[in-house]
Order: sequence, then C-alpha cells, then structure tokens
Amino acid sequence: MASHSPSINKLIDEFNKLPGIGPKTSEKFVFYLLSQPKSELNKLGQAVEHLKDKIVVCSSCQNFAESDPCLICRDSSRDQRAICLVAESPDILALEKTGEYRGTYHVLGGLINAVEGIGPQDLKIKELINRINKDGIREVIIALNPTIEGESTTLYLTKLLKKTKVRLTKLAQGLPTGSAIEYADEITLSNALKGRQPL
Amino acid sequence: MASHSPSINKLIDEFNKLPGIGPKTSEKFVFYLLSQPKSELNKLGQAVEHLKDKIVVCSSCQNFAESDPCLICRDSSRDQRAICLVAESPDILALEKTGEYRGTYHVLGGLINAVEGIGPQDLKIKELINRINKDGIREVIIALNPTIEGESTTLYLTKLLKKTKVRLTKLAQGLPTGSAIEYADEITLSNALKGRQPL
Repeated sequence: MASHSPSINKLIDEFNKLPGIGPKTSEKFVFYLLSQPKSELNKLGQAVEHLKDKIVVCSSCQNFAESDPCLICRDSSRDQRAICLVAESPDILALEKTGEYRGTYHVLGGLINAVEGIGPQDLKIKELINRINKDGIREVIIALNPTIEGESTTLYLTKLLKKTKVRLTKLAQGLPTGSAIEYADEITLSNALKGRQPL
Repeated sequence: MASHSPSINKLIDEFNKLPGIGPKTSEKFVFYLLSQPKSELNKLGQAVEHLKDKIVVCSSCQNFAESDPCLICRDSSRDQRAICLVAESPDILALEKTGEYRGTYHVLGGLINAVEGIGPQDLKIKELINRINKDGIREVIIALNPTIEGESTTLYLTKLLKKTKVRLTKLAQGLPTGSAIEYADEITLSNALKGRQPL
C-alpha cells in the first residue's frame, strides 16, 4: 500500500486544484470528511455541483448574479450614471458593506499583470467603454488594490478614460484607521502626505 | 446587496466547515469554482458525495479501506504478528513510503489530550488489546508524534502494554536528516544524545 484508496486519491486530486491548497491540506480535508456523516458530504457535494445552476454574469456590470441585469444594475434608487470599477466580484461586497456608495459597479475580471501575461485585452475594458458611452455615465471611481498591478491598471485606464468626459477619481491612499504613524511604511506615509485633506 | 447570492453563500458556509478554512478562503474557493467549467464542479461535487460509498473501516487495524479486512491485514507476505501503532490514517502512508516496514498497522484515532478532553476511552485501545491477545502479536512499534500529546499517549500505552508479553519499541528521536546541529533545539539534541547509536 503505497497510496490511499482510489476514492480518497480522487478527492485529494480535486481539492488540490483549489487555489492555495496543496496535497497535504487536501489530504486533511478528505480525512476530515471521512469522519463526517454522509449527509454532510451530500450537502457539500450538492452545493458544489449546483453552484452555477442559478448564477449568471450580469451583461452590464459583469458581476456574478442570479438575474441579468443584476439587482444593482436594475435598482432605480441607485445612481445608474456612476460606476465604481473593481477587479473582482468579492471587492463589491466589501464596498457595499461601507454603505457609503449608491451607484453601480463594473468588474474588470483581474488586473494588468505583465509577469502573468494578463494584458488589457483580457479585462472587461471594452464593456466598460461601451457602458460609459451608452448609459451616459458621469463618474467612474477606480477602486483597485494599491499594488503594482492595481497602479499599472489605474494608469492605463486613466489614459484611456481621459478621452471620455467622465469625472475620474480613485480611492484615497493614506493611513489605515487604527494604525500608528511610527510604524507606517514610507510609501503609505508619503501617499498620506501627498493626499492631505483640508480641515 | 449586502451579501452574495444564496448559492454562493451556501457553498461558502460548507467550505467554512473544513479544518483550518475561514470565510475569506471559502469565498476564494467559491469564486475560483465560478470561473471553472461546470464539468469541473461536477467532478469535485461527485468525488465528495461518493467519497464514503466504497470506504469501510477495517475491523482489525481500524484504517480506512475498500475491503474488510484491509489489503494490509490480508497480506500473508507481511508479518501479521507485528503492529505499528499510529494516531491517524495518513501516518500509515508516510511509513509505507519508507519501504522499511513489512508488518501491520493499528490506527488509534487520535492522541490523549486533556485540553480537548480526549481520554484513552476515546481511542481504539480496547481493539488493540484484543488484537494482541487474539492474533499472537509479538511486537508493537509505537509511532506517535513526538509532541506532548504523543508522549503522554506513549507513556499511557507503555504502562498498559508492559502487562502483555509483546516486544515494545517506539520510533527513534534525534536529529532529522539534513539538519544542522548548530540550529537544533535543546530537546531534540538532548534526545539525540540519549539515543546515541554504537558505530
């Protein structure tokens, strides 16, 4: 016996495909599941199999939703002429939790990344331009991670969107709430200085 | 929209139950799966649902197997009178990979752990004693993790098994291969000294 039973190996291989999960963690998952009642296995298995049954991609904002257009793109109480641009779907939930924003979103589907070979053509930029022209968008808030990839994508989009007449802003960079100036890194502190706000 | 679609939330909740997985990692898994074709979802879902269909617990060694007794307990080319005692099933695979051992195994199903309230009665110790008496076992090799829990369990079992006539050994403790004496911790080095081997 130099390996597990076939059904154990099969599931280890499947878990192994999940992002950030290696063979040891997969094995841990499988032996955890082996200790659970069959009903638990069915619940997980069914939830995986039926995940996409009701999920569509909203043809307007490109977010995962249960209808097309999605609830946000249909909501007339929201400002349908403002777009907050995010890299991935989960970013929308984080922004919604603030309760500060009442416009729509647009999911790029990633960030420009030369190392991984992701260029502008791989992102939903054409769809964004179409929306800006078609829906009379007035403001685009760029809400991308303050990383090298996020900054390059912001730079690329700024150049591109300057040609349109939309008001273009990006999320403020500065000190995160609850942090200590003493321990802030130079770039964060320098951004906080550059973006200093009138009182 | 202060939360994801129901089918997304459902799967996040299910992944959240896996050991060591929190809501953020669950979310990452779900959005990864949303980017995969339906066939991949079916493969993972089916593998989870059918995991236990063919898996039984070997009534002799308590390991997960596809037959009872398992392949190792049935293998007449192996020494059926030697038992290597392990805490969990995955330990068996690690030991088998060495190719050094040709006896049988016994899975305790855990280790004595006062903090988590796991006592000897929660482990497959009665089954071990039964095997020792019934199958004329000659040697028991204790192969438990060299941790506080592993050591307490070894101590408990040593006291218990001293009453039987089996030859009782435990895995050697000392320097791991490829390590540097300079950086070895005191307990490892002290164990390596105590267990020094004649040349």
